[in-house]
Amino acid sequence: MTDAAKPDDRAAAELRGEHWIAGEASRGGGDAFHGVDPTSSERLEPAYFDAGDAELERAALAAVSAAPRLASARADRAALLEAIADEIMALGDSLLERCERETALPRARLVGERGRTTSQLRMFAAVVRDGGYVDARIDRGDPERSPAPRPDVRRMLHPLGPVAVFGASNFPLAFSVAGGDTAAALAAGCPAIVKGHPAHPGTSELVARAITAAVKKVGLPAGVFSLLHGRGRALGAKLVQHPAIKAVGFTGSLAGGRALFDLAAARPEPIPVFAEMGSVNPVFIMPGAMRARSAAIAAGLGRSVSLGVGQFCTNPGLVFVAGEDGLEAFTASLARTLSQTPVCVMLHEGIWTDYIQRVALQRQLPGVTMIAGGPAVPFPANGSCSVKPVGLLTDLETYESSPRLLEEVFGPVTVIIKCPDVAALEAVAAGLPGQLTATVHAERGEAGDAATLARVLGERAGRVIFNGFPTGVEVCHAMHHGGPYPATTDARATSVGSAAITRFLRPVCYQDFPAALLPAELRDENPGGLLRMVDGTCTREPVTSR
Amino acid sequence: MTDAAKPDDRAAAELRGEHWIAGEASRGGGDAFHGVDPTSSERLEPAYFDAGDAELERAALAAVSAAPRLASARADRAALLEAIADEIMALGDSLLERCERETALPRARLVGERGRTTSQLRMFAAVVRDGGYVDARIDRGDPERSPAPRPDVRRMLHPLGPVAVFGASNFPLAFSVAGGDTAAALAAGCPAIVKGHPAHPGTSELVARAITAAVKKVGLPAGVFSLLHGRGRALGAKLVQHPAIKAVGFTGSLAGGRALFDLAAARPEPIPVFAEMGSVNPVFIMPGAMRARSAAIAAGLGRSVSLGVGQFCTNPGLVFVAGEDGLEAFTASLARTLSQTPVCVMLHEGIWTDYIQRVALQRQLPGVTMIAGGPAVPFPANGSCSVKPVGLLTDLETYESSPRLLEEVFGPVTVIIKCPDVAALEAVAAGLPGQLTATVHAERGEAGDAATLARVLGERAGRVIFNGFPTGVEVCHAMHHGGPYPATTDARATSVGSAAITRFLRPVCYQDFPAALLPAELRDENPGGLLRMVDGTCTREPVTSR
Repeated sequence: MTDAAKPDDRAAAELRGEHWIAGEASRGGGDAFHGVDPTSSERLEPAYFDAGDAELERAALAAVSAAPRLASARADRAALLEAIADEIMALGDSLLERCERETALPRARLVGERGRTTSQLRMFAAVVRDGGYVDARIDRGDPERSPAPRPDVRRMLHPLGPVAVFGASNFPLAFSVAGGDTAAALAAGCPAIVKGHPAHPGTSELVARAITAAVKKVGLPAGVFSLLHGRGRALGAKLVQHPAIKAVGFTGSLAGGRALFDLAAARPEPIPVFAEMGSVNPVFIMPGAMRARSAAIAAGLGRSVSLGVGQFCTNPGLVFVAGEDGLEAFTASLARTLSQTPVCVMLHEGIWTDYIQRVALQRQLPGVTMIAGGPAVPFPANGSCSVKPVGLLTDLETYESSPRLLEEVFGPVTVIIKCPDVAALEAVAAGLPGQLTATVHAERGEAGDAATLARVLGERAGRVIFNGFPTGVEVCHAMHHGGPYPATTDARATSVGSAAITRFLRPVCYQDFPAALLPAELRDENPGGLLRMVDGTCTREPVTSR
Repeated sequence: MTDAAKPDDRAAAELRGEHWIAGEASRGGGDAFHGVDPTSSERLEPAYFDAGDAELERAALAAVSAAPRLASARADRAALLEAIADEIMALGDSLLERCERETALPRARLVGERGRTTSQLRMFAAVVRDGGYVDARIDRGDPERSPAPRPDVRRMLHPLGPVAVFGASNFPLAFSVAGGDTAAALAAGCPAIVKGHPAHPGTSELVARAITAAVKKVGLPAGVFSLLHGRGRALGAKLVQHPAIKAVGFTGSLAGGRALFDLAAARPEPIPVFAEMGSVNPVFIMPGAMRARSAAIAAGLGRSVSLGVGQFCTNPGLVFVAGEDGLEAFTASLARTLSQTPVCVMLHEGIWTDYIQRVALQRQLPGVTMIAGGPAVPFPANGSCSVKPVGLLTDLETYESSPRLLEEVFGPVTVIIKCPDVAALEAVAAGLPGQLTATVHAERGEAGDAATLARVLGERAGRVIFNGFPTGVEVCHAMHHGGPYPATTDARATSVGSAAITRFLRPVCYQDFPAALLPAELRDENPGGLLRMVDGTCTREPVTSR
């Protein structure tokens, strides 16, 4: 932590209902809205205002003007990411307190999520410093080649330009203002304009102040970051349609992500939208695994379903089991785990309402029985967005005739689907739409069937988990948090892990350039010691003339 | 070349007007059309037929069914790519003869293009064999980590699934049935369904036979490749909208590429479209370069403009010069080079008509004068799609008031634009839409200005060329043949060079998998000796337990 960041000063800082546009606070805009305490429906001060055209234009103009400097300042970008992490920590308890009020997420979870947020920022700082992510390639020329000389060709990845980031409600720190998309965009060298999620505007304001302070400290142009508040859809739509914006990062619902994708595709200049959307994250339990450890699987599954009040995009919504063997014990055990979970409060009324309605619709399907979960606590009777986890049980026939079961229910609910045998599991797997994750539980003796199932699931999911549970997405180099549509709008992209940086990069190729005009990453001497592909071979060595 | 491929047999093979659908010849479909000799407008036998729904369905079904086997057979894919190259060579002169008739491209060019086609196939074979393209990443687990164990996470790239490839008219071999997109798709492990370009159906039929023979020889499922003929837009639209298709490769016009992109984005499950479209490939000549070598630049530019009758997407359409110094000599020299170019025949009547019309519209702009190029040979007076290269001259004011000058004219024409000074060059560069290439000519003494210009051009183009010309795209690892929209629909993708394979791949992540269920590329022992990222460090070593 640096001298500039003093936790005590920050804790005293009052919220002011401000956008942060290129280093300057602003309260401009249209309609007012407030954060709301989901435990009581109490309105939280201060008021925030929907950013209007003027705010958007200022942010966009500043981002465009800051882009070239940010693009060329690799070392400064690494320093910026670390400074943001420092400044977030320097916000101290004031950040956690406000975040807890706005989201009802418990303090321990928020402390953990803050750690994830800062470690993501530091991971990207290391990636940027290392420089290998620019994927430098050099093919040396050959003036003697016949019939035509071979040119000297060198390429590396450069930033796409300003990125629009949409804060997610379910990770108010790790997928919000300074979350994974912002960190990846800044790491890539792209200015970020964040539309804060209206469910936690105070949290967003505090984090925006931290980023703004970090930008200033590092000496980068203020336009590399802006936060705009907005409750309605208009701001998001205008942001995605703005000519200054060159890519979009989004985490949220299928409807929301698809709407942004459609707007971006319809632009005069289409831009990529990296929307991480819905997923039911199916779990497949093979008969051997069920026989060997039904209670352990049920306990783990119950924890995974109810973790964070089920408000994870990796929440296991469907559980396919083969045969009756061990099923009763499994179901009873899962029911017990879910029932023992205390009543919890969801993030906001919108999510709560949607959860209540969707669970009710699933329960009403003929052939579906409830194994756990009482009637939901009514809202706003006690003013709280409270829920209990729900477990449902049905059979393959009902699953196959109920497309609704394949729709994500955001919250703590899971549906067990009895299948007759392993062949049915494979058939189900082959018919799944795109998923973020899919999980297989199997024992050593059924490895052949498990391998087939895993292969089929790998064709439909971004991540396949063996004998585990999908919640808890490790932030690392090998993580892929993505998957075929409708899990995301771009199966080639991850929104977690160091590979997320590549979303915001494109190659630029330099042909027959004099050394002095080449970016440092592509010069013969390889001053940064980057791993580069030279004439098809990866090496950290300098390039010698042919 | 293998025993199976006997040039003499093939040379005798007659064309039959056939689609090739998963190993079987078919003449089904709707309306008939013919290839046409553009030197004479003579209709060439046999008739071809627009593939209908039945043909498309057969190809799609076979592709889906072949996909898993192709995906898992890395060594067989390398063998397939080499076998295709062998079989194309085995077609012998019959391929060159037919192609010459259908395209009017001279024999020497076609021999060169055939070499490019086979060397592309062999390059991808080497890439597939090496295996590094799967970008394997391993983060080892740590069961002792607190508060939660660290999972073992491994990921690699897998094929997207069946790819639709649109043959291009201007490279009847290298960007057509067995061209770069097909080679990249097959290399990635994606079955390819090619819509042949209607201007060279006979060439397409011959190459499809070669691919079909290669698939059979290597023992891969026949569904990995199909060729469908079609003249109208219906087939292409249906192909892009077909649920079996997971990505699209296209080279052609802005209108055509955008139409396919829009169809793909509007699908229930959107898919990526890699369309390489229009570009004016601006050339900037700095004053020092003009003073030092105006004649040499003019000669090189003239050759680049008229090469292949200007029918390259990298054709230099706009040339910006600063000041009057040396301009007269330059213009005269360019005019001489262009005028000395013999009358040449364009690929087909559609391209010819479009060229004639667009050149006429540019010439008619007030402020534009013609420095080279007589009146076009009228069509169909002599039945030939003949043209002479055209040089035009104008000033910055006219350029700025004539958006038409920024539209690609496909054919041998270039427009010199007089700018007052270097600052004007930079301003022009900053206002350009996305380009495949941009070129700077500068001398040592003006490196500072050249560096600024090159940086600005790098923000707008996929490839920046120094003291050279944009035509002639080297097939190598460092090549980037792409660029921001409207040069392509995806600035992150290249359609030339080994990096083109990544367009058709997506990551799949394996969490806590037992070794036996992991793909070989991700196993500890690293049997293929791949370069992998292990715990953030690139290495070819096996993985040891923590």
